[in-house]
Amino acid sequence: MRAVVMRSQRLVVDTVPDLEPESGEVLVGTLACGICGSDLHALKHADQMVANSIEAGAAFVMDLGRDIVMGHEFCAEVLDYGPGTPRRFASGTRVVSMPMLVRGERISTVGYSNDFPGGYGERMLLNDALLLPVPNGLATEHAALTEPMAVGLHAVVKAQLARSDAPLVVGCGPVGLAVIAALKLRGAGPIVAADFSPMRRALAEKLGADHLIDPGAGGSGYAELARVAPGRSAVIFECVGVPGMLQQVVKGAPIGARVVVVGVCMEDDRIKPMLAIVKELQLQFVIGYLPNEFTETLTAIAEGKLDVAPLVTGRVGLDGVAGAFDALANPEAHAKILVKPAIPSV
Amino acid sequence: MRAVVMRSQRLVVDTVPDLEPESGEVLVGTLACGICGSDLHALKHADQMVANSIEAGAAFVMDLGRDIVMGHEFCAEVLDYGPGTPRRFASGTRVVSMPMLVRGERISTVGYSNDFPGGYGERMLLNDALLLPVPNGLATEHAALTEPMAVGLHAVVKAQLARSDAPLVVGCGPVGLAVIAALKLRGAGPIVAADFSPMRRALAEKLGADHLIDPGAGGSGYAELARVAPGRSAVIFECVGVPGMLQQVVKGAPIGARVVVVGVCMEDDRIKPMLAIVKELQLQFVIGYLPNEFTETLTAIAEGKLDVAPLVTGRVGLDGVAGAFDALANPEAHAKILVKPAIPSV
Repeated sequence: MRAVVMRSQRLVVDTVPDLEPESGEVLVGTLACGICGSDLHALKHADQMVANSIEAGAAFVMDLGRDIVMGHEFCAEVLDYGPGTPRRFASGTRVVSMPMLVRGERISTVGYSNDFPGGYGERMLLNDALLLPVPNGLATEHAALTEPMAVGLHAVVKAQLARSDAPLVVGCGPVGLAVIAALKLRGAGPIVAADFSPMRRALAEKLGADHLIDPGAGGSGYAELARVAPGRSAVIFECVGVPGMLQQVVKGAPIGARVVVVGVCMEDDRIKPMLAIVKELQLQFVIGYLPNEFTETLTAIAEGKLDVAPLVTGRVGLDGVAGAFDALANPEAHAKILVKPAIPSV
Repeated sequence: MRAVVMRSQRLVVDTVPDLEPESGEVLVGTLACGICGSDLHALKHADQMVANSIEAGAAFVMDLGRDIVMGHEFCAEVLDYGPGTPRRFASGTRVVSMPMLVRGERISTVGYSNDFPGGYGERMLLNDALLLPVPNGLATEHAALTEPMAVGLHAVVKAQLARSDAPLVVGCGPVGLAVIAALKLRGAGPIVAADFSPMRRALAEKLGADHLIDPGAGGSGYAELARVAPGRSAVIFECVGVPGMLQQVVKGAPIGARVVVVGVCMEDDRIKPMLAIVKELQLQFVIGYLPNEFTETLTAIAEGKLDVAPLVTGRVGLDGVAGAFDALANPEAHAKILVKPAIPSV
């Protein structure tokens, strides 16, 4: 099959071996797969990602000497089943799944694995038990956003918001936008959101932010939060994930604030613990989502409670993925670009 | 009056101006005052402490060009009252107080102030409203430990321990010992505690730790916690407070652990956010205590529920303070040394 392959820190379109589903597995055809910021980072800093995996004691670590087909935000259609697997869904049924494959004792992350290609390829292997059928009528492109939106819902669930809390979202890239949508879904507010980019602020407003702040024009999300939600406790969602951001939030946060760290900073970072100490801050690091949160997200999108349509700003075929990675570096150009293997080469 | 003065990063015994209580203030005579690790740090890194205060937006910042009399863990006796102040307690009544003085609009920390000397001097000014009489019969030396023990109680309260949680105390200096005593007071356990020092481990056991670990002999508090409290959630009290400790705890902590950062690291620090992210750790920074926690601590000591006697390992007069600071650098020599101005010069 054809796939976009990460090879020697570059993306190339190539033919990779066809996939054979084993018992309990399903062969699916990729319909749409979002490009995630983690993929951009993995391409640039794959070695660091591997070092982090080793340090975290991960069961499986990518071998950068071998091909990797990324892509973990997908909607696909059922093509075939492994031997002895109940054929729960007819061929052509559209499905989503958490991007993981359990084979024997081993759990692999689809999209960050040497053996199990992700959605930047024409086909994938998934576990039958993890498949969720796309509710009738939901657009494939929107179903593909289940995964990134589930990240936002998980962060909001972990925040355990009380009615006396008031949220501030720092950074309105795809992660921040998912958090804003989840806050709206859960009825939290007013929602203050800050980003340097006019396009991202406009998207944040569409997804439910009530007060938009431009730090580039001297605005402060912390001051705005105090203004629009006086007396309430600040819960700050850090959705940028680059070195220095954590300390910036520690510096800006009011006394007693809780910080939910959703942005994934893969590099080493410096902080001044003393500032966090005198303010008695709480840092809650989060990642991913639970199966029930993934399912709830799909349902909310299908029922129109999570409006993800504004997020899709581009579509490319496999040939266009490398260019899309470059385009995503500009926050004014795109939010989410979907890879659709069916889009023909130019 | 005579006092130990911090002057140009040295401790010298000198005569400082006598104190005049204003309305609402009480002049007290210092009976005993503990030497705190923060004082050791302040002597070495006063400039850094000042820089931190400025960055945190503190209302008052020490002027290092002027004398400072440290000491904030004290028991004192009432000597005189300011004009118009109700004479609630007879002269000679023994009292403790949170180490703060409110005068007009200004709140000063007794012991870290240019204007209000702490317990390394013969006399102090305190607010009448903050005085707590020492319950009849409680030894002065034990009452003086109210302040450091309240730090431990506050940390345990902030941890919001559930019955499904299991505590690990990393570092058994005075802060860690106070946490262990507070855990015991609150009925939490089993308590696992780790320290390189045999003397500190022995003290930890006296104060209530159930399982003692020597990291120097290859022991791991994290492994011990998993062994003695399988299936329970780890709540790790970081009580060391030096650069690198936070990352060490992040590295050792099991998935989903909560870390209560009680140790006060005044220097910049490096962390790897990625490790905290993949484990979904929570870092709760804490400092000080609330007035009700201070009062509860005094009561618990007086009622014998918090046994602080093992903590007192030395007593010095004002002339002995500089030497005591040196002695405290050795964890085998001392836990808490009390300064007692009444002890005559040698």
